[in-house]
Amino acid sequence: MTHDIQSELPIGVFDSGVGGLTVLKAIREALPAENLIYLGDTARLPYGTKSPASIERYATQAAAKLQAQGIKLLVVACNTASAVALDALREAMAPLRVVGVVEPGAAAAARAQPGGRHLVLATEATVRLGAYRKAIAACDPQAVVREHACEMLVSLAEEGWSHGDIARAIVQRYLDESDGHNPDTIILGCTHFPLLRDTIQDVADEGVILVDSASTTADVVREALRADGMLRGGGEPGSLRLLATDGATRFARVGGQFLGHDLSYSDVELVDL
Amino acid sequence: MTHDIQSELPIGVFDSGVGGLTVLKAIREALPAENLIYLGDTARLPYGTKSPASIERYATQAAAKLQAQGIKLLVVACNTASAVALDALREAMAPLRVVGVVEPGAAAAARAQPGGRHLVLATEATVRLGAYRKAIAACDPQAVVREHACEMLVSLAEEGWSHGDIARAIVQRYLDESDGHNPDTIILGCTHFPLLRDTIQDVADEGVILVDSASTTADVVREALRADGMLRGGGEPGSLRLLATDGATRFARVGGQFLGHDLSYSDVELVDL
Repeated sequence: MTHDIQSELPIGVFDSGVGGLTVLKAIREALPAENLIYLGDTARLPYGTKSPASIERYATQAAAKLQAQGIKLLVVACNTASAVALDALREAMAPLRVVGVVEPGAAAAARAQPGGRHLVLATEATVRLGAYRKAIAACDPQAVVREHACEMLVSLAEEGWSHGDIARAIVQRYLDESDGHNPDTIILGCTHFPLLRDTIQDVADEGVILVDSASTTADVVREALRADGMLRGGGEPGSLRLLATDGATRFARVGGQFLGHDLSYSDVELVDL
Repeated sequence: MTHDIQSELPIGVFDSGVGGLTVLKAIREALPAENLIYLGDTARLPYGTKSPASIERYATQAAAKLQAQGIKLLVVACNTASAVALDALREAMAPLRVVGVVEPGAAAAARAQPGGRHLVLATEATVRLGAYRKAIAACDPQAVVREHACEMLVSLAEEGWSHGDIARAIVQRYLDESDGHNPDTIILGCTHFPLLRDTIQDVADEGVILVDSASTTADVVREALRADGMLRGGGEPGSLRLLATDGATRFARVGGQFLGHDLSYSDVELVDL
């Protein structure tokens, strides 16, 4: 295949559910000409409370589904899958380039506050593996990192309760539980959490910087495609396909909030894994 | 097989996760001599936000796993699976007797308040099918039923946040959303919700009766086994086996709260479906 034909192929974006749409949105803003195909493994979400073996199996199946559609690069737009299964995915998909969200998020945090005190809010599985702690240490050995599992924030975002007193109280409780750490940055270590950005910013101490992986992941994708000579040229906006493994109606309803515009269930194709 | 040998077989109890342990606990209290085997499909929980087709497929696989172990009766200790897949399970497992939790819960509510105004708190899938509305109407045509989806209550119970201000605020919000109904009973239409019983009772108007399926399901199981001559005799306490499809450590930690005593991960056997 020539580079010209390859550059027409979509970028594949994969998440356990709809949260990865925050990353897809950032990629679409940074690279509007790119064709995109998104797969949400809604039949088996959430990944964050499952075992590493299950997460790796599920992620590999989802990635293979996207590879079978023909893609030029795979984005693992799920912190849990990135934390648990990135090496396995790179091996299984080789020579396809695979970009996770943990390393870009860690790099963004290290850049935002060199030698800083970082608090990572993430799922149970991501925290258990210390994924962000290791990735930040690789960029900035002076940094001090605490990771905290916040499953209720996933439910809040899914329920559409990202603002208001209940969201504030839950965020406050998680920040209180990590009391004494006095972070200067808070890393949104789950793709659901950008929906809670305003609430977290509001509850956190003044001056705390919020960092998420979405825009830095988009930067990494752009640089990777540029290096490989596979950026799609021309002024035409790229296409978007949305695949889900279950519940097109729910995907459309919740996913619209993440993508920032309304979706209908007919925008979502159901697939089996 | 003679009835004597059959009566030694365990009762199989199945749920998407740990919530069904509230039903298992009630069965153990009502029938302490019975051998019990529990399967939590933790690799694919929660069921409550998934599509009927997925729920039916998952439930049938889980039930077949228990049937293969040798059981004398199957309890579907999951409201969502009972609402969506009970007919399919009865057909697939025949002639094994299959007991769901929706009909016992509905009967308990109708008995508690004949001609009453019932509010059912349940998962999205259970509400979408109107499972309790239909089951209560079959017992008591005069009853007025409203059903309300309360996904955040599942997360609260899983996170171990069943008491305190956040739990109260979330329960209050769901009750406010069903405002104007003025229920005289509230049906805990998800096996996670008995953990929130005190909080819900506290937030609800004085005099509102809380109903759950656990003890009435245990009554139905006892009557069914008695009718079939399969109650296990003798004063020896029965055995208990716990199976899960993922995450024995998490199952033990969260499940202990539901069962009312500590569990260790070595008490839980991992199985594949």
